[in-house]
Amino acid sequence: MPSLTMPQHKQLTFYTSPYSPYCHRVHIALEEAKVEPSLVEIDLRPGCKPAWFTNKVNPMGTVPAFTYGGAPAPPDQPSPAALKLAESIVLIEFIADLHPEAALHPKDPELLARARLFITLSHDTLHDAFRGFFFRGERIESILPSLEAFQALLAPSGYAVGPWSMADVVVAPMIVRFMRLAGYEIGKYPMGEGKRLLKALGEPKFARFMQYYQSLWDRPSVKATWDEVPVSCDSPEGRLI
Amino acid sequence: MPSLTMPQHKQLTFYTSPYSPYCHRVHIALEEAKVEPSLVEIDLRPGCKPAWFTNKVNPMGTVPAFTYGGAPAPPDQPSPAALKLAESIVLIEFIADLHPEAALHPKDPELLARARLFITLSHDTLHDAFRGFFFRGERIESILPSLEAFQALLAPSGYAVGPWSMADVVVAPMIVRFMRLAGYEIGKYPMGEGKRLLKALGEPKFARFMQYYQSLWDRPSVKATWDEVPVSCDSPEGRLI
Repeated sequence: MPSLTMPQHKQLTFYTSPYSPYCHRVHIALEEAKVEPSLVEIDLRPGCKPAWFTNKVNPMGTVPAFTYGGAPAPPDQPSPAALKLAESIVLIEFIADLHPEAALHPKDPELLARARLFITLSHDTLHDAFRGFFFRGERIESILPSLEAFQALLAPSGYAVGPWSMADVVVAPMIVRFMRLAGYEIGKYPMGEGKRLLKALGEPKFARFMQYYQSLWDRPSVKATWDEVPVSCDSPEGRLI
Repeated sequence: MPSLTMPQHKQLTFYTSPYSPYCHRVHIALEEAKVEPSLVEIDLRPGCKPAWFTNKVNPMGTVPAFTYGGAPAPPDQPSPAALKLAESIVLIEFIADLHPEAALHPKDPELLARARLFITLSHDTLHDAFRGFFFRGERIESILPSLEAFQALLAPSGYAVGPWSMADVVVAPMIVRFMRLAGYEIGKYPMGEGKRLLKALGEPKFARFMQYYQSLWDRPSVKATWDEVPVSCDSPEGRLI
C-alpha cells in the first residue's frame, strides 16, 4: 500500500481480521484513499480475543475498528483522547469525508444518495445469499434468487450506481468471495456446489452480475487487498471460511 | 413550515405517514433545512396502500420516500426521470448533502463520524425498547436497561454528540414518543405502565436522558413536526399507536 498519508491527518490505527469481509471493505477504502494505517490484527477465535480490545478500543468487541488521533501510544493502550470508531460503513464514510479526493462520495448528491440506498438495499439480498451459501451451507437454488435481486439493484452499466463510489467498496468483498471461494469449494455447502454456482452465474441471465464482478476484480484497490492463498479442495482447511 | 426551498433545488415530493417515527425523522430534517416539499400521505393500513406507490415510487412499499427532480407530474405518476429514494437515513443524508447550511452534518469529520456511529448503536438500544414497550406491550423492567444503554451513548452534555447533528434528527421521534405517549398511556403495555415509565425516568439515574429529551423537545423543528392530539386514556383509540 503506498505510504501517502496526508500530513495534516492524524494517526490511524486499524484493528482488523484477515478473513472478515467487513474489514476487507475498510481495507479497500483505505487503499483508494492512499492511507497506510497502523494495522493490528485481532484474533476473533473463541477465547482468543484480547480483553484490552473490548475494554479500550471497541466495547462491542467487533472489527473493523479505528483509533484516530490522540498522543502516540501502543495499540493495546490507545490514548484516551483518541477517537474510537467501529462499524464498517461508519469507517468508510469517515475515510470518504477525510479524503474527498478518493471519490468514495460522488460529488453529485443524487449519485451519493443512490450509493447509500444501494448499500442499504444490497444488505437484504447479497448478505442473505452470502450467509446462506457460505455459513449455512445452502444449495444454490436457495441463493440464486437473492443474487438475481442484487443484480437488479445495479445500474445498467459501470459500477453499482454507474461511477465508482463507496457502494462498490461495501459490496466488493462479498462479490469477490462468491466468485473466488466457490472456485475452491470453500464454504459449508456440499462439495461441488461451488462449481455449480459458477456455472449458474455464467448463464446469460447473470451477465450484468458477471460484468460487475469483473469490473470490481479489475480495480487495483480490490486486487491489492485480496490475499488469495490457493487451497486444495481435499484439505480440511479448504472447507472452512 | 417556512417556504424557503432553495431556488436551485428541484421539486421534492415526500411520501409520508403521520404516525411513523421514521417519517417524523425526515420531517424534522426538512424543517431544519427550511425545505417545504410536496407532501403526499400514504395510507399504510392493510389493503389501503395504493398500488401506484409500490409500482412507481418505492418498490419496497415503505414510507418515508422521495421523488426528486424530473418534469412536474402528479404524485401518483412521477416522472421516470425523477430520482426515487427511500429509507429514512438515506433521505436525511441526502437533505444534509443538499443543504449544508442546515448543519445536519457537523463540519468536523470526527464529530460527523461520531454522529453516524451513534445512529448505528442507538438502533440496538432505543429501537428495541421502543418496539418492546409500544408494540409488544412489555413492562418497563424489560425496557429500562435498553434506555440506560442508550443514555450511555450520549455525550456528557448537549445533544447526542455534543453539537446538534443528524444523530438527534434520527432519535428524536422515538424519544419524544416515549415521553409524550406514555403520559397518555398510548401503547400495548398494560394500563398504568406509561405513568410508571415516566416515574422511573424521573429518577436521578436517568437525569442525562431527561436532559436530552428536554433539549430535543425545546428544538423548534421537533415541536413543529409533532402533532399532539390529546387522547383520552379511556378511548379505544387511546390504546393504539
